[in-house]
Amino acid sequence: MTVFDELNDPKACERHLACLRETFPELGVGAFLVRDTSNIQWLTAFDDVFDEEAAHALYVCPDHAWLHTDSRYVTACENAARLKPLEVSAERETHAQFAAKRWGGRATGAADALLGIEDGVSLAEYRRLQKAFAEADAEEPFVETDGVVVGLRAVKDRYEIARMRGAQSITDAAFEHIVRYMRPGMMERQVQLELEEFMLRHGAQGLAFPSIVATGPNGASPHAIPGATMLEAGQCVVLDFGARSYGYCSDMTRTVFLGEPDPEMRAVWDALREANESVEAMLRPGVTGKEAHERAEEVLAAAGFGGRMGHGLGHGVGIDIHEEPVLAPRNERPLVAGNVVTVEPGIYLPGKFGMRLEDFGVVTDDGFDVFTNSTHDLVVI
Amino acid sequence: MTVFDELNDPKACERHLACLRETFPELGVGAFLVRDTSNIQWLTAFDDVFDEEAAHALYVCPDHAWLHTDSRYVTACENAARLKPLEVSAERETHAQFAAKRWGGRATGAADALLGIEDGVSLAEYRRLQKAFAEADAEEPFVETDGVVVGLRAVKDRYEIARMRGAQSITDAAFEHIVRYMRPGMMERQVQLELEEFMLRHGAQGLAFPSIVATGPNGASPHAIPGATMLEAGQCVVLDFGARSYGYCSDMTRTVFLGEPDPEMRAVWDALREANESVEAMLRPGVTGKEAHERAEEVLAAAGFGGRMGHGLGHGVGIDIHEEPVLAPRNERPLVAGNVVTVEPGIYLPGKFGMRLEDFGVVTDDGFDVFTNSTHDLVVI
Repeated sequence: MTVFDELNDPKACERHLACLRETFPELGVGAFLVRDTSNIQWLTAFDDVFDEEAAHALYVCPDHAWLHTDSRYVTACENAARLKPLEVSAERETHAQFAAKRWGGRATGAADALLGIEDGVSLAEYRRLQKAFAEADAEEPFVETDGVVVGLRAVKDRYEIARMRGAQSITDAAFEHIVRYMRPGMMERQVQLELEEFMLRHGAQGLAFPSIVATGPNGASPHAIPGATMLEAGQCVVLDFGARSYGYCSDMTRTVFLGEPDPEMRAVWDALREANESVEAMLRPGVTGKEAHERAEEVLAAAGFGGRMGHGLGHGVGIDIHEEPVLAPRNERPLVAGNVVTVEPGIYLPGKFGMRLEDFGVVTDDGFDVFTNSTHDLVVI
Repeated sequence: MTVFDELNDPKACERHLACLRETFPELGVGAFLVRDTSNIQWLTAFDDVFDEEAAHALYVCPDHAWLHTDSRYVTACENAARLKPLEVSAERETHAQFAAKRWGGRATGAADALLGIEDGVSLAEYRRLQKAFAEADAEEPFVETDGVVVGLRAVKDRYEIARMRGAQSITDAAFEHIVRYMRPGMMERQVQLELEEFMLRHGAQGLAFPSIVATGPNGASPHAIPGATMLEAGQCVVLDFGARSYGYCSDMTRTVFLGEPDPEMRAVWDALREANESVEAMLRPGVTGKEAHERAEEVLAAAGFGGRMGHGLGHGVGIDIHEEPVLAPRNERPLVAGNVVTVEPGIYLPGKFGMRLEDFGVVTDDGFDVFTNSTHDLVVI
């Protein structure tokens, strides 16, 4: 068995398409039009084909699937579609026209005479669909769906988990490297570049997202953009970063200290660590995202830092850096085995500093398997 | 005068908002809701605040503008909004609810009793707007607009031009560096990383887009993703890359030769160079995007490479890598001074190789000022 047996299932496209088709009866649709590139990525299981352009459409019927793309991508798509139950078309027409043509001869009134579309499509695309179907003399058969494929993607299989573990290995190694590299006097931006270059030079296919390196009061902004601020002794630095490997993301945050932390900083770190570990110990199938979030809030409040988080405790990770399910008050659904989520309590003290401690891992049959290997101990530079 | 006087106009937000307000009478709207992050970036002229998340909404009235964001960005937004005619809100409500509340007391039936929205919003966001306005007892006042702010952004001012010239300087320097670095036996991916690190280490705030490094037959795919393919003597390599500086993009492509090109390769390069230079010499206000594209096609066809391009000749560049106007058959509108466009003829011979030669620059009162300083001569490594 090679590493690729762990990473690649030649039947992934077939399985994922089958998962989507299983939703048809409940949705009352006879076909589904997918426009979100990450959803198409998951359904086709193409590697190294799609980029940031939303230039593709996947039309899925019960017994067939077509990928509509354009001349720029057709060769790569055709190569990737070999041995897969998928037909590639680069016909010069809009995705809407393509869909209307596929829909074509379908009898109205049949139980499956509706077409699922994603409510993430743009309003302009929706108008194009209306027009194309009207021109094809089809009544508007659209069922606007919310998160169907995203919902399917929330449960990862072992190949996807292997990819994310790999991405996290690179991320852990980058953390080890950057701890040795950082010192007072460096700019945040310089640390960011070193961190990102390390990941890219050690196997990352790309970054999961633009890294955060935030020192001093900048750390109190959860989405700070690294700049010319210099690292100073006595401060803490928030490092939030991730790699992309075989199409899948990793995500971790550590906060490190430039010199021994003062008592307040230490108290914040201890609270974060307890919140993080308390949640990681409770995660298992049946726990809801809301319960996990509330546990963290309770721990933080008990330590005197109630109301200082301001964001959800965690989110799903996969092809996208933010996926389902979320660990947040709005998610009252129980987690299931295969959910991959971050656990990232944060405490932000505006004008002073901020800290966050984030791992990610997979919900297993009886617990939570953390992918992140970096320490939870205080890291003092 | 410092470099920052060239790069930064403290009145940019005010001017850009005024440009948008000038469109209100023609659109028949009394206010406009902006959701596209690049559009918001342009209208607010915030530097280093927004990232890839579409987490913001800008509501523009004739005499006021509000930016609705969330707790993660509020500090940065408030700092950036100082001295600007802009109010920041991080109230916990959806953007749709925020817009409905602002719309509030407006009299229906008035000449301006309509709200401009962008047709790039998602269908889900559109449904949220409908719901929020219904709950606020407002009739649906939406005018679905296509490319209003994008159209305004198509004419760049001197500050924006200075930012793009700066981005291109970094890009030219990276090209010089990579020509010295490249040699047969390297992987495409290795060249890509070196190119990108150089730009990031020399002042780029980020990449304009993921760079393309495509050798041999891979070059025949205009959107090839760099991989493990090795550079071989006798081949040509397409390098398509750009930097981001002060929020603005650069974009260039050069094709370089690993050893003296064979006669066919030389013929392709000569045709590309002639197409590129012929178009750059003709660009001026009044010329249409279609005419520019057709001129390039004519030159390529005369050289025996008709129908081998397969993509538009060029596109606008600015905050986004692909902006208005395009140099393509579908654009029959005349260019105006201030348009910044790429000129990038390509010839793709599937199974053999591909080449592209791309500059970018600005349409001036009487011609075209090219930002790109790298040579059009054959570069042989």
